[in-house]
Amino acid sequence: MTDAPREIETLIEMMAKLPGLGPRSARRAVLHLIRKRGLLLAPLADAMHAVAVTARECLNCGNVATADICPICASEKRATGEICVVEDVADLWAMERAGVFRGRYHVLGGTLSALDAIGPDELRIPRLMDRITAENVTEVILALNATVDGQTTAHYIADQLHGQVTVTSLAQGVPIGGELDYLDDGTITAALKARKAL
Amino acid sequence: MTDAPREIETLIEMMAKLPGLGPRSARRAVLHLIRKRGLLLAPLADAMHAVAVTARECLNCGNVATADICPICASEKRATGEICVVEDVADLWAMERAGVFRGRYHVLGGTLSALDAIGPDELRIPRLMDRITAENVTEVILALNATVDGQTTAHYIADQLHGQVTVTSLAQGVPIGGELDYLDDGTITAALKARKAL
Repeated sequence: MTDAPREIETLIEMMAKLPGLGPRSARRAVLHLIRKRGLLLAPLADAMHAVAVTARECLNCGNVATADICPICASEKRATGEICVVEDVADLWAMERAGVFRGRYHVLGGTLSALDAIGPDELRIPRLMDRITAENVTEVILALNATVDGQTTAHYIADQLHGQVTVTSLAQGVPIGGELDYLDDGTITAALKARKAL
Repeated sequence: MTDAPREIETLIEMMAKLPGLGPRSARRAVLHLIRKRGLLLAPLADAMHAVAVTARECLNCGNVATADICPICASEKRATGEICVVEDVADLWAMERAGVFRGRYHVLGGTLSALDAIGPDELRIPRLMDRITAENVTEVILALNATVDGQTTAHYIADQLHGQVTVTSLAQGVPIGGELDYLDDGTITAALKARKAL
């Protein structure tokens, strides 16, 4: 409640529902937008409208795209026979920012979860199986989060693909720039188990 | 950089400029919006458009409004002869949420600042002077932030109004529910100086 006009109140309520924003930060953001309404608010509304109209999911991999097939799936250069499996489009973006992987992706759209009744069919896993043969895939790289649900999902997919293709997963260990003193026990244990000869 | 389509990239860049959001939270917010684009993104774009078209500043007090004069200035009930001076519309909203003040407001739009070259003319202070006579004001309540700039501005306005109307300011002291152990020295000093007989 802000005693603001109804249009502004509505906008604040909608903004407050975005992840990372609450009622207070939504009020601040909206006031900021109103102060610079010519410069910010109208263009932002237009940008949202443009995305609302064009955004869709890549039918092949689940990436966010403006066409039925995303640029990565459409590019012949990225048909390396490797598919990197991620939970989320945000993870795909993180991998692309690193700029080290040149194959294609498969976005699951979440993790298996008995609690939330999310099974393989909710997760684009059948589509992954189809792609193995359709795209002559030789290696599936599991880049799932190092959480319980993420690792459960990784094991499930590894089981399903057993014998068909090479299945690998991202290495676990000390992050670059990480200080041992600040790392959790699990990470240190994983890093020690996976130690390498120099 | 996210390797996302241009429309989405643009939207993320614009969202990242909002106060309280950075590149990472903007990406999360935009992905959330895209996932629920029918339910969230299009309506949010429409809500922003509605505000962009209707929002303006009250010509009298500087409040955010959808008409030239805001509902508070337009209401005869609020012509109590008291004007509460605030820095910002967010402060006006905070006062209204408390629901205790029944007079009108005057939104300065900032504080005096020699560093940023903000003088009285940038701050709607001349308009405040005009309102004193035009609205038969008897008391000006300075509800400015307890910062150096806020208090400098309060002193300046008090000087300008000296002899014309009663000028008061919000009491400083221990916040309700506040624990002494967590309060800064300045607040404790102010609370002690302004101690009351029980």
